[in-house]
Amino acid sequence: MAELPTFLAATPTDGPLAGPLLVLLVLMAGAKVGEEVARRLGQPGVVGELAGGFVVGPHALALVSPDASALVFAELGVVILIFQVGLEVRVDQMLAVGRTAVTVAILAMALPIMVAFALMAASGADLPSATLVALALAATSIGITSRVLADLGMLDRVFARVILGAAVIDDVLALLLIGIASGFALGTVSAEGILVVVTGALGLLGLGFAAARRARGLSREAFTWPLFADTPLVPAFLLMLAVALVAAAIGLAAIIGAFVAGLVLAETEARHELQEEMRPLGLIFTPFFFAVTGAEVDLGALARPETAALAVLLAVVGVLAKLGGGWLGALRLGRWPAFVVGAGMVPRGEVGIVVANLGLSLGLLQAGLFSAVVVAVILTTVVAPYLLTLGIRRVARAPARAG
Amino acid sequence: MAELPTFLAATPTDGPLAGPLLVLLVLMAGAKVGEEVARRLGQPGVVGELAGGFVVGPHALALVSPDASALVFAELGVVILIFQVGLEVRVDQMLAVGRTAVTVAILAMALPIMVAFALMAASGADLPSATLVALALAATSIGITSRVLADLGMLDRVFARVILGAAVIDDVLALLLIGIASGFALGTVSAEGILVVVTGALGLLGLGFAAARRARGLSREAFTWPLFADTPLVPAFLLMLAVALVAAAIGLAAIIGAFVAGLVLAETEARHELQEEMRPLGLIFTPFFFAVTGAEVDLGALARPETAALAVLLAVVGVLAKLGGGWLGALRLGRWPAFVVGAGMVPRGEVGIVVANLGLSLGLLQAGLFSAVVVAVILTTVVAPYLLTLGIRRVARAPARAG
Repeated sequence: MAELPTFLAATPTDGPLAGPLLVLLVLMAGAKVGEEVARRLGQPGVVGELAGGFVVGPHALALVSPDASALVFAELGVVILIFQVGLEVRVDQMLAVGRTAVTVAILAMALPIMVAFALMAASGADLPSATLVALALAATSIGITSRVLADLGMLDRVFARVILGAAVIDDVLALLLIGIASGFALGTVSAEGILVVVTGALGLLGLGFAAARRARGLSREAFTWPLFADTPLVPAFLLMLAVALVAAAIGLAAIIGAFVAGLVLAETEARHELQEEMRPLGLIFTPFFFAVTGAEVDLGALARPETAALAVLLAVVGVLAKLGGGWLGALRLGRWPAFVVGAGMVPRGEVGIVVANLGLSLGLLQAGLFSAVVVAVILTTVVAPYLLTLGIRRVARAPARAG
Repeated sequence: MAELPTFLAATPTDGPLAGPLLVLLVLMAGAKVGEEVARRLGQPGVVGELAGGFVVGPHALALVSPDASALVFAELGVVILIFQVGLEVRVDQMLAVGRTAVTVAILAMALPIMVAFALMAASGADLPSATLVALALAATSIGITSRVLADLGMLDRVFARVILGAAVIDDVLALLLIGIASGFALGTVSAEGILVVVTGALGLLGLGFAAARRARGLSREAFTWPLFADTPLVPAFLLMLAVALVAAAIGLAAIIGAFVAGLVLAETEARHELQEEMRPLGLIFTPFFFAVTGAEVDLGALARPETAALAVLLAVVGVLAKLGGGWLGALRLGRWPAFVVGAGMVPRGEVGIVVANLGLSLGLLQAGLFSAVVVAVILTTVVAPYLLTLGIRRVARAPARAG
């Protein structure tokens, strides 16, 4: 079992795996210390995890820089989180809020695109960069919202289901818009390509919903018949990974696949056992998603005042337009539940950063604008838990109108 | 949440994380299909996981090649496995078998070294390569044995505690011998270096046992006082990682630290809750350790008949000498319990491969000899579950003399 002490041996063989484990330890410890401080101050725990990741990360104390395996832990962390959310949700309840979710998704995407595009055009930006900035502020990242809803025990509320449904639709729309826009920018867009994405996305969702209906009441033995499976966990985990990868292969986010897998398994008899068995996995994996997101924040980009001002402006516009779009779309739920839905759509997270990176690599965004977009995206992500908590407190205060 | 479809976008952005997740899925699926086949054939499940990893790995179907994050999952898999073993063991029971464990460790290390050295010397090998081969066959890897004992529900037996204790001592001894031998080969050995290793190793173990005694009856609230900790899992996981990394920093195997952390926590009131919460983590992580080990096996090295013959000879010698040494050391437990102890010491696993790699990189082992040693090490690992199962059945048949 021995590894070699470096000062005795010629080759430092205790390095290759101790390094990544140390990165994991520091990120997790940072996230948890951050969460502890945040919660003692009465702030949302997830903000503390983001802040903890930022503090230990390369742009602050520089104790660690997330490496390849930390990124995989982070990705798996959000996949597991959204899979757990899927396990909490019943497909009939999702379909029941279908029309509201579609309205929310469309309005909460159209409004930010229009406002951000107008703002960029007014400030004299060219068409491609205005388009990219608008798209970066359009797509919703459901990770933060899911975590806040789960922490507050609100996943079974109508507004939670509307948010989840709208986020799924939002993902499909964003995928299409971004793909089409970058295709136009490069002259590589094709009708076949668009058709393939749309078919794939609708196919996965349709199959998922159909599978969920057929899975209703499926016995526990459907999962535990293999000798390797004393409990449903391992077969379910493999299914989660497989569907997440199918979604990624289609071009959707992996977490959409994880959500669909969770929806399907939520209909089976294995539901409660899986919720119980996934809990420790969620506790260990999901902090990495938030810590790594925090570690990627570079406040140095805000040193130039124009960049800082633009970032704040984009963030304000991004938050208000998303909140307003979501609120309008969900108004039939009542004022404050609609506010919660709007707030739930606010975080942009990794999607906005992916779009900004694309713009940078295509030469459509200058470095300053890129930094401003990234900081704006992060600000939307950090402010969302506060808006959500505020809205949910208001809903709780008026239970007669509660979602 | 969208990632970009490669056929629409300029840069293939859905690649960087889908790739590692796919590797994880294929390795885990391979391990589980392998386990299923093995168990349906009445074979130990862990042999199936090794075989499954081999089949999907680069030297057979070549579906995947374990990447950086798969290696981290594998390392964390064995760390979690041994942490779970530590949680099952009481420190007083370990100390009660202390003398037997020391005798087993010394004999089960001395015998293979002497026999392998004599064999190599007789075959005309030079002193450094004979020494390296002997050392590669000396150290014990506890991963396989722990898994088999856990699968059979035997971790609370006297022979299991003797094996665990002997493996810990074995690790310290192997560390010293390998460090000293390679230091001599390079002329870099120093009394200070040896002293530091010995002090560090004894210090960690001494502190661990002392901490375990002081932790006796520690309340659950000692772990759940942080607001982030609704259960003891996250604090315990951080402790496990930290002690594993301390062990690695000293030059011991990370799993020795994980074992010590488990021993300490096993004395607290959080024990049963932690066992329950660690179970899903073990189910998800540990298959990667065995699948990755299997994936690293290259049977191509056996194409040359001399290499194949030498590998088999070394494996036979390695198994018999280790079995004999362990058996002699544990004879006071009775014939068959002593056989189980000897069998439990048989697998060499990753340690032997580390030593062989060291010899190759120092130019002390030729490529043919290197391959033979690696294959011999793997053979000891694959044969061990059979010997263990055989021995445990015999013990079970004669309960009066059972360990």
